[in-house]
Amino acid sequence: MRMSELSRRSGVSVTTIKYYLREGLLPPGRQTSATQAEYDEAHLRRLRLIRALTGVRGLSVSTARQVLDAVAAYTGDPHILLGLVIGAIDVTGETEEASAPEGTAEVDALIAELGWNVHAGAPARAALAETITSLRSLGAPVDHTTLLPYARLAERTAALDLGQLDGIDDPLESAERALLLTVLLEPALLSLRRLAQQNESARRYGHG
Amino acid sequence: MRMSELSRRSGVSVTTIKYYLREGLLPPGRQTSATQAEYDEAHLRRLRLIRALTGVRGLSVSTARQVLDAVAAYTGDPHILLGLVIGAIDVTGETEEASAPEGTAEVDALIAELGWNVHAGAPARAALAETITSLRSLGAPVDHTTLLPYARLAERTAALDLGQLDGIDDPLESAERALLLTVLLEPALLSLRRLAQQNESARRYGHG
Repeated sequence: MRMSELSRRSGVSVTTIKYYLREGLLPPGRQTSATQAEYDEAHLRRLRLIRALTGVRGLSVSTARQVLDAVAAYTGDPHILLGLVIGAIDVTGETEEASAPEGTAEVDALIAELGWNVHAGAPARAALAETITSLRSLGAPVDHTTLLPYARLAERTAALDLGQLDGIDDPLESAERALLLTVLLEPALLSLRRLAQQNESARRYGHG
Repeated sequence: MRMSELSRRSGVSVTTIKYYLREGLLPPGRQTSATQAEYDEAHLRRLRLIRALTGVRGLSVSTARQVLDAVAAYTGDPHILLGLVIGAIDVTGETEEASAPEGTAEVDALIAELGWNVHAGAPARAALAETITSLRSLGAPVDHTTLLPYARLAERTAALDLGQLDGIDDPLESAERALLLTVLLEPALLSLRRLAQQNESARRYGHG
């Protein structure tokens, strides 16, 4: 299809599509003349993913490209693929500073107690340590005991997540689905939590 | 204390403190001369909250001010206060468009089935509907059946959240704690989910 049709079907303006092409976020079409290129269904699908990552998920264009490139470079190992998609493996290539964040030992102890098998360098470890440290500096200590029940609920959530990939044999489709159900489902889960808090507050304080 | 001491104790630069003062995010100090003002512990605590909201939580300066103003205007009713803090009540004052998002009916049905007592205009409702619509357009339909078990886990998470406010009698302290444990705990919960996914992936695909 021509770029005009790609624009119409994706709902993304021609200007924005050209920007994504320049930034390497969208692979170039097949050149049919000096000024014309042909795009296919793969471009359409990728455009929708880009919109979801940058829109719903709020990623920067450069982070979105890194996530998509990582998925495209799929190695054939479902565990590695999922690691890339869910951010267990850092796609940004930013290496951690030599000095570990303050809450690191606490996070390590928590993971050991849970018996979780996770990468030592998983970005989520550092992110968790940073949040713990930040909450502590605000006088709201979040310790081990507080986090443990949350972690047990996270385990059950993760089992739901991974269960949704069952029965998908095609590795690329599985990767795409994993991306949607992990990164893109996050705002839905946060919304559910806020609604549930409101319900719990109404229950406790007796308001209608 | 002088601004220099406020800067030292909070770790926030004098330039940034002046910016927060100009933006109305931090209330002015007590003027002691034409060029000097005195700041107190309340300023220090508020500065830390601002840093947490704009840093860890990634809110814009203007949204952070709205959240803090809403907490400061506490009405005496714990349910309303918590509503403000957890975002059940929209602090930005943006009213919903007349046309409800596509997934709204689905969200309404889900909330009815759960028996949750939540505001009709809660921003999280619209946010959830938007995410559902977005996932659907990407070929990853997230329906009622998929969301229900996540919602049940969210209920249990919310009970943990609200339970942490037990025993705090001072309403302002309760508000501040609620702010920390809801808005600011979100990144920790997302980190836990990603780590749990990684563990679940290792469990299923047998990698170390």
